[in-house]
Amino acid sequence: MILTVTLNTALDLTYGVPELVPHASHRVSEMSERPGGKGLNVARVLSALGHETVVTGFAGGSTGAVLRELLAGLPATDAPGPGAPGTSPASATPAPTTPAPITDALVTVAGNTRRTIAVVDRATGDTTQLNEPGPLVTADEWTALLGRYEELLAGADAVALCGSLPPGIHVGAYAELVRAARAAGVPVLLDTSGEPLRRGIAARPDLIKPNADELAQLTGSREPMRATRDARRRGAHGVIASLGPDGMLAVTPDGIWQAAPPARVLGNPTGAGDSAVAGLLSGLVEGLSWPDRLRRAVALSTATVLSPTAGDFDRAAYEELLPRVGVEEHTPAAR
Amino acid sequence: MILTVTLNTALDLTYGVPELVPHASHRVSEMSERPGGKGLNVARVLSALGHETVVTGFAGGSTGAVLRELLAGLPATDAPGPGAPGTSPASATPAPTTPAPITDALVTVAGNTRRTIAVVDRATGDTTQLNEPGPLVTADEWTALLGRYEELLAGADAVALCGSLPPGIHVGAYAELVRAARAAGVPVLLDTSGEPLRRGIAARPDLIKPNADELAQLTGSREPMRATRDARRRGAHGVIASLGPDGMLAVTPDGIWQAAPPARVLGNPTGAGDSAVAGLLSGLVEGLSWPDRLRRAVALSTATVLSPTAGDFDRAAYEELLPRVGVEEHTPAAR
Repeated sequence: MILTVTLNTALDLTYGVPELVPHASHRVSEMSERPGGKGLNVARVLSALGHETVVTGFAGGSTGAVLRELLAGLPATDAPGPGAPGTSPASATPAPTTPAPITDALVTVAGNTRRTIAVVDRATGDTTQLNEPGPLVTADEWTALLGRYEELLAGADAVALCGSLPPGIHVGAYAELVRAARAAGVPVLLDTSGEPLRRGIAARPDLIKPNADELAQLTGSREPMRATRDARRRGAHGVIASLGPDGMLAVTPDGIWQAAPPARVLGNPTGAGDSAVAGLLSGLVEGLSWPDRLRRAVALSTATVLSPTAGDFDRAAYEELLPRVGVEEHTPAAR
Repeated sequence: MILTVTLNTALDLTYGVPELVPHASHRVSEMSERPGGKGLNVARVLSALGHETVVTGFAGGSTGAVLRELLAGLPATDAPGPGAPGTSPASATPAPTTPAPITDALVTVAGNTRRTIAVVDRATGDTTQLNEPGPLVTADEWTALLGRYEELLAGADAVALCGSLPPGIHVGAYAELVRAARAAGVPVLLDTSGEPLRRGIAARPDLIKPNADELAQLTGSREPMRATRDARRRGAHGVIASLGPDGMLAVTPDGIWQAAPPARVLGNPTGAGDSAVAGLLSGLVEGLSWPDRLRRAVALSTATVLSPTAGDFDRAAYEELLPRVGVEEHTPAAR
């Protein structure tokens, strides 16, 4: 089982409007509601890849109740036919088409789970995002989460720690969760930003997956190779920098690779990073080589950009892209 | 008791952002949540004026449950000290400071009550509004509402029919509700727009309170006196046109009056129309003269524009403004 932790889960609302005009009144023409927060997005993709996933983190109030109700309805059962279980084939084969279960192990809090609102301008396709800050989490609730997390680690093959911290959670929270995973011998991927990332890295996670902005904020450098190596020196065993349309740069104890999609694609990048995390973690659990893990991560995130629904990946595009992702190893001299 | 009907109630969210930038991501710095829809706003002001109010209409789903929970917490009990009950003094005296109860007689529907989101740009104070369409109401739910409404009319001194229609409700719905009120001998004020207003007027409501845009849409004229008289000819016994900062023009069976605040004010006009409805209805129930009803309506809506919280009225401003609202009667020759 793969565990994902989302401390600041969200009820994600998408509003379609003909055109967003500041200071005007808009009638929302289409809307959708889904369980969100990075770790939940990662779990949805892992499930689609055939990996049993358990999600923990916090949920509370009426919005938390709706989130859990929607989560109970996942995975969607409209996948066509059965497929191979995700944990058996140790290669970058296409994903199985039977989604695996997602188990809700969220800790209930008194506060209200935040809403995020994506206002999609139908004229341009552009999205304006409004994110509530999240509930104030108490010390007792954090202690309850730590207990739940340690129990779940006992059965986990890997863990992803994802997203922002809700109010009330100390900035070293991810460092604490990284240390617990390492003590339990469970590979841990940390995907956050700012000070929680800086502190978390110092606890030596197995992997981090920053984008160019997060990496620049962490290291002060916008030069990918320099920044990625600097991030490794700060404590991360492996750093997978996501470079948007340019693909990914992986600096790991086993070598350095650069992976890129066969062509630039246009679409909505929402959730592309979460799909990459799912690709990396599932590849790790399946024992794939670094190049195959990167191929999967790049193909999944590109197929997410191409999907008409923000945050979902287009399965046909994924399978078509997978063998076409280019992976290049940097020779020791180039290092 | 005064009855207000809100067929499309709403959970009103207000998000404060430093500056709204289309196609960017925003962290909401302040947020509030309150029960909304025009009839609920009217009820809140009636309660503040000391009038017992019953609210009906539709509410459903998780958002409806939150709305009803917040409604149960109204009226806020932080009003300073006791005051005279609103129904006894037949004059335009200051409002009592003890709010009267608001009773929830909403009909539960299967669909989700809509959310409305007001994004307030802290840089300029301007508001961008996003309104969900509302739940699809079934024929059985509409029949249940009609039954509840007729029961409530038996105990009502006046009724206000407020706001837009949710999906599934036929465009002649307000006309049906107006006829039922008239059959029960209860004075009825209709505050809506577009085709539901046009149909509703034909059922001969006692009062309508259109703004300049609604009046122009109804009559094709932007000349207030001509448009207001035209609206009366279409069936409304009394037409109170709200002219924004210019005050109100009342064309009634008893005469024509124009009422205006002592000076133009700057602020947020959200809810000013609902406060005017509360002023007109409470004045009617208290047996005030037309000039005193208009004074109250203009003072309340001006005090709503001045309030720092959208939709609330500033009580001190209201009491200060009340004696200073100018009311002029149009002489028969001028008619």
